[in-house]
Amino acid sequence: MDFTVETATAAVVESFRNTGDPRLRRVLESLTRHLHDFVRDIEPTLEEWEAAIGFLTAVGKQCDDTRQEFVLLSDVLGVSMLVETLNGDEHGTESTVLGPFHMTVSPRRELGDSIDLLGTGRPCVTSGRVTSTDGTPLPGAELDVWQCTEDGFYDVQQPDVQPPGNGRGLFRTDEEGRYWFRGVIPSHYPIPTDGPVGGLLRATGRHAYRPAHIHFIASADGHRPVTTHAFVAGSPYIDSDAVFAVKRGLITDFAESYDTEDADRFGVTAPFTHARFDIVLAQEKRATR
Amino acid sequence: MDFTVETATAAVVESFRNTGDPRLRRVLESLTRHLHDFVRDIEPTLEEWEAAIGFLTAVGKQCDDTRQEFVLLSDVLGVSMLVETLNGDEHGTESTVLGPFHMTVSPRRELGDSIDLLGTGRPCVTSGRVTSTDGTPLPGAELDVWQCTEDGFYDVQQPDVQPPGNGRGLFRTDEEGRYWFRGVIPSHYPIPTDGPVGGLLRATGRHAYRPAHIHFIASADGHRPVTTHAFVAGSPYIDSDAVFAVKRGLITDFAESYDTEDADRFGVTAPFTHARFDIVLAQEKRATR
Repeated sequence: MDFTVETATAAVVESFRNTGDPRLRRVLESLTRHLHDFVRDIEPTLEEWEAAIGFLTAVGKQCDDTRQEFVLLSDVLGVSMLVETLNGDEHGTESTVLGPFHMTVSPRRELGDSIDLLGTGRPCVTSGRVTSTDGTPLPGAELDVWQCTEDGFYDVQQPDVQPPGNGRGLFRTDEEGRYWFRGVIPSHYPIPTDGPVGGLLRATGRHAYRPAHIHFIASADGHRPVTTHAFVAGSPYIDSDAVFAVKRGLITDFAESYDTEDADRFGVTAPFTHARFDIVLAQEKRATR
Repeated sequence: MDFTVETATAAVVESFRNTGDPRLRRVLESLTRHLHDFVRDIEPTLEEWEAAIGFLTAVGKQCDDTRQEFVLLSDVLGVSMLVETLNGDEHGTESTVLGPFHMTVSPRRELGDSIDLLGTGRPCVTSGRVTSTDGTPLPGAELDVWQCTEDGFYDVQQPDVQPPGNGRGLFRTDEEGRYWFRGVIPSHYPIPTDGPVGGLLRATGRHAYRPAHIHFIASADGHRPVTTHAFVAGSPYIDSDAVFAVKRGLITDFAESYDTEDADRFGVTAPFTHARFDIVLAQEKRATR
């Protein structure tokens, strides 16, 4: 049978019939159907198709050890957030995007350590408790934390700034499931705009900014890990995140605290800026039979 | 409003509201809807999403001056053929894929010249007439022709083989719209399989072969150009082209000819292998008001 606009999809789907992995076959069949529907919907000219090929090629060329332009593209199209949300658990802390800067192993730190290795920026303490959905504290839960400087840069964006690992830390909760560390109040910042994704944002009149946030990946035995942010309440762009990652439940007050007991526990002097961000992890689902 | 699986698409579509170019806005809105539908359909795990990012990045990295892996990907998913078919004209010669090897300017040649610069392979003559849909011959029509060797390689795949431009030619039809040139019978050949698209074909149990063909881009004043192939009748893989490009109307006999008049006209000796491939171009549509 000839390849026509009508028979195209069935022909390509049929070509995947010998795929060994049933999941891969399912994904490729769905990809083919949706991709062909998109093409039939917009009926691209040959010049538009060439422009699309050129755009995707440029996105690939922009990627290197410290830059992942395809993740950025996924981010600005809302795909990263959609995947995160589909993988989140309704009972635990809401998930949000991983982002493109989780590309190095964070240094192991002790509770109370500072992740601010530069000494610039307004200091703050971030603390909270990691619990299971039933309220049980989770001792020994692992927190991978990373954030930008007050100027809006992650360490991997400034490889010449020493020491390495600024703004990052791997923490483990104490016997009551608590964690605390010192750092600086993060800034809102633009995603990188010197590549093809930046060009897409300009062509569509979109700004490139993300509201200020601290990244977390929290994990504990027997529980589903969560990738999330603590967003700084009142940050610019909190209502128009370039990557659609804000959820109201993640917006956190970075407030002045006059609590001297807390100050003693955290090793700071009151008043100090205190962000309290508790994390709830859902129990792992039992395998279904 | 929070970003949820249900509100995601509307939020991203809304972000394109300030796009200056209405066509770009339309394309991005459709892309967002179809891409999100695909993601909601397959519900990828985070590991699968990472694998997809890694695959696209590898496709981009594989591209260079003589290799276009995103075109290959578009080809094996049937997208290239779909775009070509959508842009074809039902009244003219059917279109098929451009393919990834139309990347150099073909050398200008005179009617009757040989595009076989190596002298290897079984010689043949390709000839035909370029007409408008009403049968009017089109003198001065331009034909850009390229094909592989008997071993299945295009010149750009073998940059060390001299002289350059083997298998390529730019021809102009004579006053009766006729063209003819000498060459070799092309071979079936595999698309490049040493990149990520090759990995995709292996993972899905698909072969990488294309049936033998000669590429043409035909154009004439006042007519819509057509990108097409003359497929060699009886070639291996004629029923399972890896890029879905075969249309029955393009299958051409490369037959033994004993016609001494033709032989004289083409500057060869009978018997000779003769492929006759006529091309019909549709008139350009008037601009709609």
